[in-house]
Amino acid sequence: MKQISLFVVLVATLLISGCNCKPQECPASALDVIMSRTSIRNFTGDPVSKEQLEVLLKAGMAAPTAMNVQPWRFVVVTDKDKIAEVFGAGPRSGMFTTAGAVIVVCGQTTMMMRPFGQPDAPETEVPNKFWFEDCSAAAENILLAATAEGLGAVWTAGYPAEERIAPIAAALGIPAGVVPLCIIPVGIPAENPTPKDKWKPENIHWEQW
Amino acid sequence: MKQISLFVVLVATLLISGCNCKPQECPASALDVIMSRTSIRNFTGDPVSKEQLEVLLKAGMAAPTAMNVQPWRFVVVTDKDKIAEVFGAGPRSGMFTTAGAVIVVCGQTTMMMRPFGQPDAPETEVPNKFWFEDCSAAAENILLAATAEGLGAVWTAGYPAEERIAPIAAALGIPAGVVPLCIIPVGIPAENPTPKDKWKPENIHWEQW
Repeated sequence: MKQISLFVVLVATLLISGCNCKPQECPASALDVIMSRTSIRNFTGDPVSKEQLEVLLKAGMAAPTAMNVQPWRFVVVTDKDKIAEVFGAGPRSGMFTTAGAVIVVCGQTTMMMRPFGQPDAPETEVPNKFWFEDCSAAAENILLAATAEGLGAVWTAGYPAEERIAPIAAALGIPAGVVPLCIIPVGIPAENPTPKDKWKPENIHWEQW
Repeated sequence: MKQISLFVVLVATLLISGCNCKPQECPASALDVIMSRTSIRNFTGDPVSKEQLEVLLKAGMAAPTAMNVQPWRFVVVTDKDKIAEVFGAGPRSGMFTTAGAVIVVCGQTTMMMRPFGQPDAPETEVPNKFWFEDCSAAAENILLAATAEGLGAVWTAGYPAEERIAPIAAALGIPAGVVPLCIIPVGIPAENPTPKDKWKPENIHWEQW
């Protein structure tokens, strides 16, 4: 009888202690976020906090840049009236007017450099041939960070479509030499589309084309 | 005495069952990977498996592209002799010759399109103005996926530096109309540099430049 009660206590204790062992909740892995990111073009209209926007911008600024120039500049619009005024025209304006914020990813197209092999020479302003690649990497990081934060976002075209970027640059006071690469509305998703499967092994050439 | 033995069994059982309740290991979150990614230029020389390379290429092909054109093409070189032959010249060739693989991220610079508003018209080949942005987003995804997989990688410049891309395109048989955007050596890291802190609030303009 005492052996049975000992056994019951043992099993009960195991069961109870087992119940306390909750599985830990993991945040989505980087690969999950990369594979599940998709363009969101409908938002609830709710605002996105400055803290969340700064998480996205930090992610953007963590991208690699040629010669560590960090050519990116960001204009972030959160004011609803201003979003409607600057981005609210055109057939697909709903993705802007329902967003909580719009991030304009810009690039400084020149950089300061010394002539090669002349460390004592003064720096001069030269074209940065790689600004659009660096800023594209930053934009992708912003989209991924938005996904990781449970926000939605979509990359909409800027450079080199002059007809798109000229009015935005004018409205936001973006100076000469700084070019809007892309315009990213960010918000609380009001849709849940399935990510496209774009895996095509035929786009890979092993060892030689 | 029996109460004591019961108590001992109870405590022992709790301790033993507690030991089984290991904290679950979470993979690094997307934000952790974005913020900890850094350029790796020294590798052990060990190979990288085709399976791992395909994880990276899947991540690359998950990037967004303008009009869903998916202009990316990848040439992946894993043969050590070929890596040395194609990428082994120049002052910083060690990052290629110690790598397990080299991924050349290329872009198709044209696309097939119908004239706007003419769904029955035949498709014609037109320039794709956004190929280098799409391929840059793919390259960033590849770098992040490499970090997530415990591999190292670095974005090295291709387009628009003609002197860099012409010999690579020739050696790999990359056809006209396809341009190497960047060249990414991938391998097992032989260094562990601290990621740069590139957060600069002065690069953000709120509401207006």
